[in-house]
Amino acid sequence: MLTKTTRLNLVDQVILQIESLIESGEWQVGKKIPAEPELVVELNVSRNTLREGIRALCHAGVLMTKQGDGTYVSSGSTLGAAIQRRIQKSSLLDTLEVRNALEQEAARLAAERRTEQDLEKIWFYHQECSSFTVSRDMEQYVAADMKLHQTIVESTGNQMLIDLYAHITEAIQESITIYLRKRFTDKLPQDEHHQLVEAIAAQDSKAAAKNVQQFFDQLKRDIEMEEM
Amino acid sequence: MLTKTTRLNLVDQVILQIESLIESGEWQVGKKIPAEPELVVELNVSRNTLREGIRALCHAGVLMTKQGDGTYVSSGSTLGAAIQRRIQKSSLLDTLEVRNALEQEAARLAAERRTEQDLEKIWFYHQECSSFTVSRDMEQYVAADMKLHQTIVESTGNQMLIDLYAHITEAIQESITIYLRKRFTDKLPQDEHHQLVEAIAAQDSKAAAKNVQQFFDQLKRDIEMEEM
Repeated sequence: MLTKTTRLNLVDQVILQIESLIESGEWQVGKKIPAEPELVVELNVSRNTLREGIRALCHAGVLMTKQGDGTYVSSGSTLGAAIQRRIQKSSLLDTLEVRNALEQEAARLAAERRTEQDLEKIWFYHQECSSFTVSRDMEQYVAADMKLHQTIVESTGNQMLIDLYAHITEAIQESITIYLRKRFTDKLPQDEHHQLVEAIAAQDSKAAAKNVQQFFDQLKRDIEMEEM
Repeated sequence: MLTKTTRLNLVDQVILQIESLIESGEWQVGKKIPAEPELVVELNVSRNTLREGIRALCHAGVLMTKQGDGTYVSSGSTLGAAIQRRIQKSSLLDTLEVRNALEQEAARLAAERRTEQDLEKIWFYHQECSSFTVSRDMEQYVAADMKLHQTIVESTGNQMLIDLYAHITEAIQESITIYLRKRFTDKLPQDEHHQLVEAIAAQDSKAAAKNVQQFFDQLKRDIEMEEM
């Protein structure tokens, strides 16, 4: 019994070590992890303990073993992997409603709490969005748009809100990008972030939240039209 | 190599089987699961496969092995367990802000979508809250209050929103109960749900969302006062 407890604890330790290597960015999502003999030395554990830890993280959706190749990082965190799997069972609209809930509250809190430094970053990405709109550089616009929204959420200082928003956004990134691209192509190019950024700058929580709602209502109409 | 793939898949199958036993309520949170020999027969797997599946679910925080006793269900889902662990690293206020984000959107959507049947349930729990306030029955009030909020969130029909709200609420249930109890004792007993329920009945999304925000602002003040 005692041996079993110790062994379980060692496996949990390996899991925690690997999770922190991933969370710190040392092991990046999509990259192959070092081979078994190397990890046995690096993490200072037995091969069996290491294997069990890796298998548990595979079951959790954090790592993924490709037969005959090696083990890859498939998600940045256990929570991210769990959300990813939950989202696979949900419709895009349901997921977007959840993200909208988080983003509206984030805009409200960002308007209250943003520092001057946050505001500088927000203006920077807003300007990027504007210039990529003018230059009609779609891929760069999509990237700047993501950075702008991420920066707003980060200005809340609420790490749980930041993580949940990031995990959900990561899981539906591709679907959103499709709509962003479509919109970029269909409409006269214009950047629509101005009012949101102004509201956050003016610390007007209500206007900021309302603006996010308007964005979302538009996105919902776009998606529903597409599905008809 | 082939054997290894098959074996991994069997473990994943065991994990899925166990997860659905838990999600369906057949295995309840807090309860001990059947002994190994029984499960080997019931799930029709080898002892090694079963053990690995159980260990993976222990690492994920869904099951918990008590040495010399047995294995217990510690969370209703992988997502719930991941949220539980994320919340352990967060402050109560950060967690409540996330819950408030979900609950406000839920109130808005519930006002739009509630059926007559939803409304009946909402009125029922609202009435329970009122009568337990009059009878000063705190424990029953707390239970009815939880049911009322849960019913409102369920009226949205958005299963992802419902799950996330439930997992977060479950993880901070105890802390919330402390404040609910304190408030119940400190103040003149009165039930404060009337405006929220009226707004949902009248399909007034804005008023419903605003009401949730007011609840939350009050709870935040209560908690901050407590911490001073």
